[in-house]
Amino acid sequence: MSGDIGPSVTLPAALQALTSNPRLKLLLVGKTKIIQKLLKKANSEQISRIEIIHAEHIVLNNIKPLSAIRQSKETSMRIAIDLVKNGYAKACVSSGNTAVLIGLSKLMLKLINGIKRPALMTIIPNIKKKQTILLDLGANINCTSEMLIQFAIMGSVVAEEIINIIKPKVALLNIGKEENKGLDNIQKAAAILKKITSINYIGYAEGDDLLIGKTDVLVCDGFIGNVLLKTMEGVIRVIFSFFKSTDKTTNNNYFIQLIKKILIKKITKHFFNLNPDQYNGAIILGLKNIVIKSHGSANEKAFKSAIDYTIRIIQKQIPEKITDKLNILSLRSIK
Amino acid sequence: MSGDIGPSVTLPAALQALTSNPRLKLLLVGKTKIIQKLLKKANSEQISRIEIIHAEHIVLNNIKPLSAIRQSKETSMRIAIDLVKNGYAKACVSSGNTAVLIGLSKLMLKLINGIKRPALMTIIPNIKKKQTILLDLGANINCTSEMLIQFAIMGSVVAEEIINIIKPKVALLNIGKEENKGLDNIQKAAAILKKITSINYIGYAEGDDLLIGKTDVLVCDGFIGNVLLKTMEGVIRVIFSFFKSTDKTTNNNYFIQLIKKILIKKITKHFFNLNPDQYNGAIILGLKNIVIKSHGSANEKAFKSAIDYTIRIIQKQIPEKITDKLNILSLRSIK
Repeated sequence: MSGDIGPSVTLPAALQALTSNPRLKLLLVGKTKIIQKLLKKANSEQISRIEIIHAEHIVLNNIKPLSAIRQSKETSMRIAIDLVKNGYAKACVSSGNTAVLIGLSKLMLKLINGIKRPALMTIIPNIKKKQTILLDLGANINCTSEMLIQFAIMGSVVAEEIINIIKPKVALLNIGKEENKGLDNIQKAAAILKKITSINYIGYAEGDDLLIGKTDVLVCDGFIGNVLLKTMEGVIRVIFSFFKSTDKTTNNNYFIQLIKKILIKKITKHFFNLNPDQYNGAIILGLKNIVIKSHGSANEKAFKSAIDYTIRIIQKQIPEKITDKLNILSLRSIK
Repeated sequence: MSGDIGPSVTLPAALQALTSNPRLKLLLVGKTKIIQKLLKKANSEQISRIEIIHAEHIVLNNIKPLSAIRQSKETSMRIAIDLVKNGYAKACVSSGNTAVLIGLSKLMLKLINGIKRPALMTIIPNIKKKQTILLDLGANINCTSEMLIQFAIMGSVVAEEIINIIKPKVALLNIGKEENKGLDNIQKAAAILKKITSINYIGYAEGDDLLIGKTDVLVCDGFIGNVLLKTMEGVIRVIFSFFKSTDKTTNNNYFIQLIKKILIKKITKHFFNLNPDQYNGAIILGLKNIVIKSHGSANEKAFKSAIDYTIRIIQKQIPEKITDKLNILSLRSIK
């Protein structure tokens, strides 16, 4: 129940999620008093599917990750991850500090056998009205070729299971299309991915390929992924604010203003559904368990999306499917 | 006279540049016959300021940089750089293969004393109706902290001279605002930049800070810079194509379509002037001489912009100003 805004957003979102998912049960981790106060709006059926787990503290947003992890005892984030660790919860959704969430998850939960490092992954809509899996978004700022290959495999599994693509296309982010372009780790990963027949590796993609849907899975290290995502979000934010601002040069005729408003609404709505409310939720991929990061500034609708997304990840048994894929690959390589 | 399209674009652009810059003289390097044929449209005054330098070959676009450099003898690119090297030309403008242009420039021209590696730099318009200097865009895919510091110094000089900013703000691109965030080379560069009093270092900036004009100079390694620029251009291209495409859901009423057209034109025109025609031209910064890279797919207007930009770089004596700045800094550090 942390995040930039806290329970006043996450709790109403939780109630909405309970309504639209009749089999969902939620453990709400935070200050009991605050949660109880906000639960007054809930009906008895909703309350029957809620359990409050008291947490005295929250992880602060402006704290250094290592200190935060050291001082994490009794924070809602740590208690929530602990509930997952003990098998009491199937997944943890948090709007809290990303670095701390990744750090605590790595520390407390186990990695899938064979996976070296977890990666932060999200799903980006593209202009083909399809979606692209993007990872890593910042869990690892330095990646070996082995890590990039593992990210490619994990991304491929998610594309198959969550966006229902048979033989999803997988690309490595680079600064050119030619084989000899870019960093050594990328070139090495490319050479190996080409040989893995069960991965549909299509070669390198560049920054401008993301939104045009050239690939179903785009793999890069966490530094690049973070820059890519923030740049994209920044450009889109600037454009939306440009639409919404009053354009003094436009004729102030009422009818023209009305049409302008309608057009802006249309564009904002249809703009490849790049609405953060709809694609909120990044998974920490590579863990045996499910931990989902919601935008810190997520509103009610966006946080509800993150819960819905988490349910899909649970239903599709993503960690198990990744384990299966890795087992098949390692059996093949033994032969 | 190379590039994706060749003399049919670059030559008319050259003629336009001659008209708007009465003191400009141009050396056109390429196949004499082709140039002479295209020069039929030129008037005698323009022709009096043109000299044709014959080049039998061009650098091919799909060639590996090292092979291209080895086989560059008698290519227009090599001859043009040679003219700069021999002092016969003040600058070289090329639409040719970027990697080869940087490689050949490094090989044939000298670096400013104290500069370890040249960087590719461009100017990006921002929503404050100002401009941001962005470097490196791909000349160096791995950068030491020393290189990043030198890029910051060079970028700062360009911001002062070309976009007329006193004490330009300089930021390092990173994936967070806190000092302990990101890669080691960036943290080391930050620690040193903070101590250089003649550089107005403001800290880290992120991908979404570029277009909002948070900083006047944004420094990163060439891999990141390339991803950042291509991502930004990709998002903008997708948005523009979205505007231009027919929206089937829109009412086909003539009046609404007309207003839509006007609106699209306005947005396209005013959209922070992010029109590649206007900001075409990246300089290979750090050389004692001036070499400018134009977009390979630049149209007439865009290539003319690159020539105009080159003239400003010559007039402002950018390499000399960088030399001066480095001399002052090294004198101070000796004290």
